[in-house]
Amino acid sequence: MGRERLVVIGGDAAGMSAAAQARRRRDEDDLSIVAFERGRATSYSACGIPYWIGGAVASEAALVARTPEQHRAGGIDVRMRTEVTAIDLDRRVVRWRDLEAGTEGDEPFDALHYAVGSVPMRPPVPGIDADGVYGVQVLDDGAAIAAELASGRVRRVVVVGGGYIGLEMAEACAVRGFEVTVVDRSAQPVGTFDPDVGAFLADAVRGLGIDLVLGDGVSEIGVRDGRASAVVTASGRELPADLVVLGLGVRPDVRLAEQAGIPVGASGGLVVDKRMRTPVEGVWAAGDCVESVHRLSGQRVVVALGTHANKQGRVAGINLGGGYATFAGVIGTAVTKVCDVEAARTGLSVAEADAAGYAYVTAVVDSTTTAGYMPGAQPIRVKMIAERRSGRLLGAQIVGKQGSAKRIDALAIAVWNEMSVDEVLGLDLSYAPPFSPVWDPVLIAARKAQESVEADLSTC
Amino acid sequence: MGRERLVVIGGDAAGMSAAAQARRRRDEDDLSIVAFERGRATSYSACGIPYWIGGAVASEAALVARTPEQHRAGGIDVRMRTEVTAIDLDRRVVRWRDLEAGTEGDEPFDALHYAVGSVPMRPPVPGIDADGVYGVQVLDDGAAIAAELASGRVRRVVVVGGGYIGLEMAEACAVRGFEVTVVDRSAQPVGTFDPDVGAFLADAVRGLGIDLVLGDGVSEIGVRDGRASAVVTASGRELPADLVVLGLGVRPDVRLAEQAGIPVGASGGLVVDKRMRTPVEGVWAAGDCVESVHRLSGQRVVVALGTHANKQGRVAGINLGGGYATFAGVIGTAVTKVCDVEAARTGLSVAEADAAGYAYVTAVVDSTTTAGYMPGAQPIRVKMIAERRSGRLLGAQIVGKQGSAKRIDALAIAVWNEMSVDEVLGLDLSYAPPFSPVWDPVLIAARKAQESVEADLSTC
Repeated sequence: MGRERLVVIGGDAAGMSAAAQARRRRDEDDLSIVAFERGRATSYSACGIPYWIGGAVASEAALVARTPEQHRAGGIDVRMRTEVTAIDLDRRVVRWRDLEAGTEGDEPFDALHYAVGSVPMRPPVPGIDADGVYGVQVLDDGAAIAAELASGRVRRVVVVGGGYIGLEMAEACAVRGFEVTVVDRSAQPVGTFDPDVGAFLADAVRGLGIDLVLGDGVSEIGVRDGRASAVVTASGRELPADLVVLGLGVRPDVRLAEQAGIPVGASGGLVVDKRMRTPVEGVWAAGDCVESVHRLSGQRVVVALGTHANKQGRVAGINLGGGYATFAGVIGTAVTKVCDVEAARTGLSVAEADAAGYAYVTAVVDSTTTAGYMPGAQPIRVKMIAERRSGRLLGAQIVGKQGSAKRIDALAIAVWNEMSVDEVLGLDLSYAPPFSPVWDPVLIAARKAQESVEADLSTC
Repeated sequence: MGRERLVVIGGDAAGMSAAAQARRRRDEDDLSIVAFERGRATSYSACGIPYWIGGAVASEAALVARTPEQHRAGGIDVRMRTEVTAIDLDRRVVRWRDLEAGTEGDEPFDALHYAVGSVPMRPPVPGIDADGVYGVQVLDDGAAIAAELASGRVRRVVVVGGGYIGLEMAEACAVRGFEVTVVDRSAQPVGTFDPDVGAFLADAVRGLGIDLVLGDGVSEIGVRDGRASAVVTASGRELPADLVVLGLGVRPDVRLAEQAGIPVGASGGLVVDKRMRTPVEGVWAAGDCVESVHRLSGQRVVVALGTHANKQGRVAGINLGGGYATFAGVIGTAVTKVCDVEAARTGLSVAEADAAGYAYVTAVVDSTTTAGYMPGAQPIRVKMIAERRSGRLLGAQIVGKQGSAKRIDALAIAVWNEMSVDEVLGLDLSYAPPFSPVWDPVLIAARKAQESVEADLSTC
């Protein structure tokens, strides 16, 4: 039996982590690895694009963790600017096209790893395909937006969608002096937060001089000479725009897989098991294009985040390499920053808890990041959502100034371990005046949540 | 039956938290509460003293969370500057002396709450009782040291002991321009950290221009005209000193309890159960003077920390008030800061793991607090100690610059929940470029620790 052939589609985290792990465990005589990447970069941080656009990160190169050359030196045959156009499961080949040379060919595989990522959501409105409308998905999108902003023809930027990436891009453009408007259908930006937490982010956005148009969708992109010139909202407002950035989030890019008959779940992501195997023999998948199990709701969900892509890619690669690893699922942890306001969440929001069928109480406390008497004390708000009767911590949200948001990890681990708020209240967390009040904000919130659970018990 | 009488000895966190909780649940007709405090303040932050000395906190008053007047308004009869000199368990009275008026008397109790705190360790060397030698224990110590530093007669400060409080006081004096030397018997300051982590703190201390004399104990305090003039080390060095600060840590102040026959454990702290009851009917205790169960070693240990004192006081008070609460124990979480170096620990150090009988592997990783390409990225080192075979996370230590140390809480919760490093590796922690690399330092450390566990398995 000759050496086995692994083909990887997608050269970012989920693809190349898998390739690297598989290579680490099996040498080139045993396993050949060919990776196809449509774009110009491998293993890059798409999450870093707003910071590059905003100028905090000096160059595109800084966002690349590992270049094609480095991967090749590691024994992975990376084919750049080469798009896979079809997967033939019967013949066990992928069809590819070199986007530069225009050449095409077949690449045979024994094992296939599908790590194509996601595509930006595009509202199905007139004008959406005009020039000057960009998603923020791959590094090439960042390069295109950077070129637009440097062209001199852009003064007004309209960001459609006030999610994480939308707000980050809005801030990036605002700090560079562009006039920025963000349009979002919801009453608050970043709808994954509860409205009382999201309101802080809205204030921070407005504090940057960004115009926030909320509760209003997009009905049309106005076009002049083939190029976007305005965003027209559902309520009829016309927002002039020299550049339109789509920040509506992403959806799994499952087109090729679907055409090949690889099953897509109800969530819209590819179906995978704990080891990142699709139901099709020899076909694996990881990253933004797959669905994950949410440990609290029990639902299969799609969460497009670099951290999951890396972990899932690693898991797939270990298994492809003959080892054993599993992906443990997600609990919806996320963090963001607008200007000096930090916000983070884990577990279920109130809306998600409702949808999952949980009954719950909530508690919100305002405290400080250090002892209140320390000069650097910053405000921090902690919200907890606890299941009725059991007091199980279902979710938490944090909003505050510097030093606030990363504390969500503690609560993520409490949620992960199915702790009750009463158990959280007993935790041995670190205390010294420069790091927290003697009652850590997390403990105060747990105390208040526990009081709410107890008060509610009589009505259960 | 008349109203019940609760007497509280000690007016800081462990005493007044209990008093306040008991009061909250039982009104004055049902329960009288008398609290005795030897000093001039109630409910203050002793941990804040170094920041007041150093000038970051403007006044002593800022360190007081709740004044005697506030407690009295809440229905607690606080007797300030009044020392309890004896406990008579047969007659159910405490003997008190008013330190200002010189008067004495008996106060009867039905329930007694012992929350006397701790006393600074004093090396039993000649000269230790001279003027100019201070512990850092109660607010009055802070006031005395502040007065010395303001007197004009102090230029050189020697801090005996390089633990948390020793280093914090050394920094406080150094930033105010005093010449500071720290003497410590160990090879590294803050012996509760492993030496490789403690070395970073040593560098930070030296960076402040503080002279660090390590591996050398104190053999004598030189005295001139009844006042400390030098610290003489075991190796014979004479360190001139206008002021000597004791930073050797503290021991439980159990003298009164011991005299009354209230049992003291092998750890040196009072024996208490989960509800903070001593073995003597009607006698409760909390705070620095009691021993706690260490959840990893299974040992009873004494940990003098405001956060435990507050929690234990709350637990005692809820139970005294007729409710039900328990103290869940400790896992040795601690955090400190010297200049811009932050350090934190949780669980067992290598030495503690050895002492507890665990066999383990360790992993150390160096990373950054944000994505490496972000302008504010700070160095962070994470060390993990994982049990052989099981991979259970036994302890973790973090050292780094701004934004590093408070991340220990996440690992504290992982340790608390007896997670293995492989389980930690699967956690859904928050990620965005301003908050961590796409592989969070905690996850990288877990990955490396897991590799060590696996590599070690073959030898188990």
